[in-house]
Amino acid sequence: MRLAVDIGGANTKAAWFDGELVRTLTRPFEVWRDREALAGVLREIGTDPAHAVAITMTAELSDAFRTKREGVSLVLDAAQAAFGERPLSVLTTAGELVTVEEARQRPWDVAAANWVATALAVADAHPDALLIDVGSTTTDLVPIAAGRVAATANNDLERLLAGELVYTGVLRTSLAAIAPCVPVRGEWCPVSSEYFAISADIHLLLGHLEPKAYDCPTPDGRPATVAFARERIARLVCSDLEQLSEGDVDAIAGFLYREQVRQIEDAARRADLPPDAPVVAVGSGALLGREVAARLDRTVVDAPWGAAGGEAAPAAALAALLAARC
Amino acid sequence: MRLAVDIGGANTKAAWFDGELVRTLTRPFEVWRDREALAGVLREIGTDPAHAVAITMTAELSDAFRTKREGVSLVLDAAQAAFGERPLSVLTTAGELVTVEEARQRPWDVAAANWVATALAVADAHPDALLIDVGSTTTDLVPIAAGRVAATANNDLERLLAGELVYTGVLRTSLAAIAPCVPVRGEWCPVSSEYFAISADIHLLLGHLEPKAYDCPTPDGRPATVAFARERIARLVCSDLEQLSEGDVDAIAGFLYREQVRQIEDAARRADLPPDAPVVAVGSGALLGREVAARLDRTVVDAPWGAAGGEAAPAAALAALLAARC
Repeated sequence: MRLAVDIGGANTKAAWFDGELVRTLTRPFEVWRDREALAGVLREIGTDPAHAVAITMTAELSDAFRTKREGVSLVLDAAQAAFGERPLSVLTTAGELVTVEEARQRPWDVAAANWVATALAVADAHPDALLIDVGSTTTDLVPIAAGRVAATANNDLERLLAGELVYTGVLRTSLAAIAPCVPVRGEWCPVSSEYFAISADIHLLLGHLEPKAYDCPTPDGRPATVAFARERIARLVCSDLEQLSEGDVDAIAGFLYREQVRQIEDAARRADLPPDAPVVAVGSGALLGREVAARLDRTVVDAPWGAAGGEAAPAAALAALLAARC
Repeated sequence: MRLAVDIGGANTKAAWFDGELVRTLTRPFEVWRDREALAGVLREIGTDPAHAVAITMTAELSDAFRTKREGVSLVLDAAQAAFGERPLSVLTTAGELVTVEEARQRPWDVAAANWVATALAVADAHPDALLIDVGSTTTDLVPIAAGRVAATANNDLERLLAGELVYTGVLRTSLAAIAPCVPVRGEWCPVSSEYFAISADIHLLLGHLEPKAYDCPTPDGRPATVAFARERIARLVCSDLEQLSEGDVDAIAGFLYREQVRQIEDAARRADLPPDAPVVAVGSGALLGREVAARLDRTVVDAPWGAAGGEAAPAAALAALLAARC
């Protein structure tokens, strides 16, 4: 049995692989709230049997850490404390599995590498493709060419610049960061910059998400229902449902959804791929990836790991990679 | 002695007036954290003697409340509990001072009315002018014509649409809400949507704010110093000060400052005013208002209430208004 753990800033994802994917787990854990508690979270995950463990991370970007180096170091410490008695490897952005000691020497090569696991798994199944992984807060776009990961950038900054990381997602993206203005009764209304509503409110309202898939806190602490989502979205233009109609709010939500798709589409158009290369749409926001594929006139093919297409996709891919390599 | 209290979502401001402005007070209090505690905050403020009290508010927009009506009602309850034994009046967006009972009948007319107090005071001193009040999170732009407040909109939604409310400020504005891309080494870099850095970080770094004027929590909980502000701003493009130089980060800060000024300038150009009407730049971000005036080629004149040009300007103006009217 192999275990892979993808340690994010807001969620830690785990996958167990034994010839095939056995199960996945998503454990909400916000690193900035209590960075020292990470080892305990990993230890809990590690109680399930596994002969070897691989980790990857994005948690190093959390503002719990002053630098990525500091973040990587703490994540490695926690992983070593939790899994140190078993063979433990760390994924690099070049697709290598290295020891913790080597990872400590190359903190920038293991920071924010989880997209590589997914991309390697996709490249095995689809030699030419565009991987679009829409997660809770970010979207990874990775070109696959001739069976190889053809990303042009490795670290987060370069990936933002290259359009291979788009900071928009299906759950936790603040609506104020999606568009500066939204349509209100035929006019363009500038938005409030407050954290009043998030992308999960849009997708819940539009029927893209089930209430149980809204698995992050709501901005106002009220329930994840369509009615409360509408109230949150109305607040984006400093309004409420006594002033705006349900239709007014639904129009704002529809616009912001299309704006998210447009941003991902713009980035996807920068990928240098043959016209018949399909899109592999994964992640909890895979519906956005599929919509982008339609706009690009590209076919959509399934992710090779089947049902684990949600938040745990990189962990599932990494567990399979670990099994294949050792 | 007259007391005026401006009850915001994050700060409550008070001013005492007795023929002249006696003093002002700003009390950080985030309504959403504990809405029931508001009466206690107001009661504390009310222990200083005052024969009559006037209130105005913006706190009703807080997501502690499902609607503005609910927010206004709770604020009025708290004010009545704290100040009810003294004559108590509430400012409307038409510039009237009404009783609490009347305010309860017209919740939308007393919601988000604090800009009217400032505008009335300015109109007394400068018959033609553009009031630009840049606060911690928002900017009010109010045209004054022929000695009267010439705003075209009253409530927050209509004011956003009219360019009379711009949701950008000098302290608490999330940088992700200021611009979708920032310049990094000659390229445009899309930004992270996380709450990594705020406008106070920009203005501290650029020398516009003293550290003690950074009187809101920092996003990462670290100190309000230039060095930590740089780290926070670097995180906006998923980076750190091992990857970016100080100069790279300062360039991002300079761009975002100019972007804030541009947004306020665009709104200011919509005001229908004679070319020689000056700008009255007030608020804790008055420097942005002065910069906008320079770009508009308009002179800048002093606010009539002298030293109380900071966050407490509306409270100071309302206290003087109360003294003049009763």
